[in-house]
Amino acid sequence: MYDLIIVGGGPAGLTATVYAINKRLETVLVGDELGGKANYKMRLRGMEGFEHITGEEIVRKFKGQVEYLDYACRRDRAARLEVVRGPSGGQRFEVTTGGGDVLESRAVIVATGAQPRLLGFPGENEFLGRGVSYSAVSHAPLFWGRDAVVVGSGRLALRAVAELAALAHQVYLAAPEPPDTTSPLYEKIARMENVQILPGYGVESVAGGDFLAEATVRGPDGDAKVLPVQGVFVEMGLEPSSELVRGVCRLDDEGYIVVDSRGATSVPGLFAAGDVTSTYAEQVLIAVGDGAKAALAAFEFLLEHPKHLADPPPLV
Amino acid sequence: MYDLIIVGGGPAGLTATVYAINKRLETVLVGDELGGKANYKMRLRGMEGFEHITGEEIVRKFKGQVEYLDYACRRDRAARLEVVRGPSGGQRFEVTTGGGDVLESRAVIVATGAQPRLLGFPGENEFLGRGVSYSAVSHAPLFWGRDAVVVGSGRLALRAVAELAALAHQVYLAAPEPPDTTSPLYEKIARMENVQILPGYGVESVAGGDFLAEATVRGPDGDAKVLPVQGVFVEMGLEPSSELVRGVCRLDDEGYIVVDSRGATSVPGLFAAGDVTSTYAEQVLIAVGDGAKAALAAFEFLLEHPKHLADPPPLV
Repeated sequence: MYDLIIVGGGPAGLTATVYAINKRLETVLVGDELGGKANYKMRLRGMEGFEHITGEEIVRKFKGQVEYLDYACRRDRAARLEVVRGPSGGQRFEVTTGGGDVLESRAVIVATGAQPRLLGFPGENEFLGRGVSYSAVSHAPLFWGRDAVVVGSGRLALRAVAELAALAHQVYLAAPEPPDTTSPLYEKIARMENVQILPGYGVESVAGGDFLAEATVRGPDGDAKVLPVQGVFVEMGLEPSSELVRGVCRLDDEGYIVVDSRGATSVPGLFAAGDVTSTYAEQVLIAVGDGAKAALAAFEFLLEHPKHLADPPPLV
Repeated sequence: MYDLIIVGGGPAGLTATVYAINKRLETVLVGDELGGKANYKMRLRGMEGFEHITGEEIVRKFKGQVEYLDYACRRDRAARLEVVRGPSGGQRFEVTTGGGDVLESRAVIVATGAQPRLLGFPGENEFLGRGVSYSAVSHAPLFWGRDAVVVGSGRLALRAVAELAALAHQVYLAAPEPPDTTSPLYEKIARMENVQILPGYGVESVAGGDFLAEATVRGPDGDAKVLPVQGVFVEMGLEPSSELVRGVCRLDDEGYIVVDSRGATSVPGLFAAGDVTSTYAEQVLIAVGDGAKAALAAFEFLLEHPKHLADPPPLV
């Protein structure tokens, strides 16, 4: 039985693993991929090389440490998580891997991340990281003096437009559904001179050369517009990869794992960190800090829940 | 009027400042000192140089950026913070500096840190960072095969003993007050062979050469023991520097600022990050992540609370 199973090999999971091993916990990281997310990066014409990601070196260092300690790493995905409770109140976690192995532990950290919701328009994948972004939080500051279209109808989309409009040259909002026109955020962007709102429009395709150069949007009456933009921000929310704990611990309405300020979920011994949680993530440094925090919280939980309480007594 | 005032120039405050400036907020950092905390460091005989602090380079980089943007930095302490509410529901913050200036803003991040509670025994200051520690969370892993005494009677002290005993050669607990002998943590350490509990004992002095080599403890009957230890862990809790917001937002029983997983306090527009909050901090990487998170949360608050609502209407 492990002390701690960490699920997910992104920045949060890697950091949690290094901290847990440093605390001498018997730890295993279950993840089919180690490293960062490609979609944090963004390249635009005239920017020298790739955007520098703050915290990237730390993640690279932690990844190296985890790879070196290969006994602490199971290159597999976690297919199922169960909380096994004994009649005397003890509990343990069982994680079943895609390969069918069952790992047991006294505590678990879930750091499975979140995925962008791909819209499927032509050029979306091709220009990912070269103009197509799913994170205005990360990439809006790069658009000083440039043009961009934001796709979405909810609060995230309005927020992205407001952030972009403060620095970009021209911002379009392609809002497939009618946005909430009574919110202060909508009122703010509707007043901005460099914002054009296109209600009922969706992205049909994007095109360009080395970098994205235009987006075609189509309106409710079938009319198409070609927008001369260098960026398309798809702001429809990410899809948290929280299936593993659905029905196990509390998720919010969008499926993110609800955690307190120490990374604890609604189930004792079960922690979460990074993009899968209901905090601001989408930033490597935040995922790293939350990974460290979850490892310390799990360590403290383990100190206060000694081993002999973890095993449910055998069934007679 | 600033968008954002950040109080405190440690890892959390510096990171928040860099993120806020990157988001193009009108930001000012109020702090009389910039940089890390010396008490994160620990040097022991046989360890090469200083302990490496993960995240130190990031803090140094952010410090350099803030110093370069000197218009964004007020080298002064914050003496008073007030929330000024207007009759129409608008609000702004007023921060009065030690020098008597009044700064106004629409949002504030408090990152004023926490101080160790010094016991005042001879040698305490002299051996700080050379054997005397106020953070077992940070330094316990360095004591593999060494000897240490933990001073304190509460949960923090028991927790430090449990962590140290798993790897150190011999651990003493000098507990001035009677510890809670019914807690699972106490039961656990009482059973460990390399733990000696000294109820009623306090530290009288520490001594050594380049590094700490012994601690003298004195018991309730006046008897003294000289313990051959390389470390003294004072685990009586830190003293959060939260006076600025006492009576303004919610603090916990120990005076830490209560925050949610995004760094929000109980007052809208008022955020906190780092050691002054009720999260696990005491780790540079966690303070850095929480600083970034608080800046993003403040940015979002500002987007959704436009400027014209911030000024209370003038009194007639």
